[in-house]
Amino acid sequence: MKKYVIIVAGGSGSRMGTDVPKQFLMLQNKPILLHTIEKFVQTVPEISIVLVLPKSQISYWINLCSEQIHIPAHEIVTGGETRFHSSYNGILSIQEDEALVAIHDGVRPFPSEKSILNAFQQAEEKGNAVFAVDSKDSIRKWNANKQNFEAVKREEIKIIQTPQIFKLSSLQEAFNKGYKPFYTDDASVVENNGEEIHLIEGNYENIKITTPEDLLLAEVILKNN
Amino acid sequence: MKKYVIIVAGGSGSRMGTDVPKQFLMLQNKPILLHTIEKFVQTVPEISIVLVLPKSQISYWINLCSEQIHIPAHEIVTGGETRFHSSYNGILSIQEDEALVAIHDGVRPFPSEKSILNAFQQAEEKGNAVFAVDSKDSIRKWNANKQNFEAVKREEIKIIQTPQIFKLSSLQEAFNKGYKPFYTDDASVVENNGEEIHLIEGNYENIKITTPEDLLLAEVILKNN
Repeated sequence: MKKYVIIVAGGSGSRMGTDVPKQFLMLQNKPILLHTIEKFVQTVPEISIVLVLPKSQISYWINLCSEQIHIPAHEIVTGGETRFHSSYNGILSIQEDEALVAIHDGVRPFPSEKSILNAFQQAEEKGNAVFAVDSKDSIRKWNANKQNFEAVKREEIKIIQTPQIFKLSSLQEAFNKGYKPFYTDDASVVENNGEEIHLIEGNYENIKITTPEDLLLAEVILKNN
Repeated sequence: MKKYVIIVAGGSGSRMGTDVPKQFLMLQNKPILLHTIEKFVQTVPEISIVLVLPKSQISYWINLCSEQIHIPAHEIVTGGETRFHSSYNGILSIQEDEALVAIHDGVRPFPSEKSILNAFQQAEEKGNAVFAVDSKDSIRKWNANKQNFEAVKREEIKIIQTPQIFKLSSLQEAFNKGYKPFYTDDASVVENNGEEIHLIEGNYENIKITTPEDLLLAEVILKNN
């Protein structure tokens, strides 16, 4: 089945304390977003890339690309008001009868190749595959009756990452039903449409770069890869 | 009220891929464990330190200390079979009518001074204070009826850290009731004894150093402090 990745990069630089949106910050002379794109191209050479960017950032990205030696081919789609709307714009841009579509955060440059390949295979077999890792920390969950955060068993909790891979038809059907404020990620949109979500083992290095500490850690991860 | 911190260091080097237990690994020429001890002494100069170590590691630690210029005074207590038993041995070593007792992971050298001070104050007022931060990631929780991991709202989840601070009498009463396999941390022991747990804002740099990536991140955090 044809494979796509929708890379959603909607962030600003606010939490990072910079004017430059975090997806454009440099890691070893290359924008974070380019690392992310290259990871998918290296792992799945035939993949089609859809990059979703806020309208105001598209010319900045194109300028940034012009300074790079090589940029894999990618379609650029304008982002929406929320993550849901940005993902949906990416989904709407795909003109296929059926395909496997990964949706991925632009600021996560380190999903493991093995996990990506496993996830595409699982999505083909079971309908979807969502990157997840075990929690290394104890977790508490709000108990509305007791009005308090209560201990939950660690093995009952999974930390969710991206990519999250679905069949195109599942995404179309679920996203066509419209935005709900309780959606937490793309998987929750598909889940809300009645489809069971299947997790797959992600990797701890697959961090979302949102703070200056994350950026420093990303440099360390890149150096050790 | 008199203040104690029980620093529990029971780890091996297995996940770190080293022979040296992770609490003894060096960060800028100082064992991780010494960084942790110094953080509490710098923040609360009058604090009494109880260090819980596996019996087999005590002589190693003492040798390591002999190579350092200055080590704050600390009592050493032998660890037990599980984290519960190690914490309990630390609690049993404290001979006071009442005290505020922080229990802390030996491999977490970066709790913020502000949060430590806030937590001791809250523990004095409300009985306890447990370091917690918001989850940056989406979370799924096992639903036993549906036999699947379901999306939960991010704001309903807290990632728990240490220190966890309690009144000595609460700890004595709760730990005297004995070990239960469902305990997830020290707070869950106290909670299981009927006491409401009060969270307090921890800090993201307060990482638990358990993998080689964590160690690299710790060096970055230390350099930026």
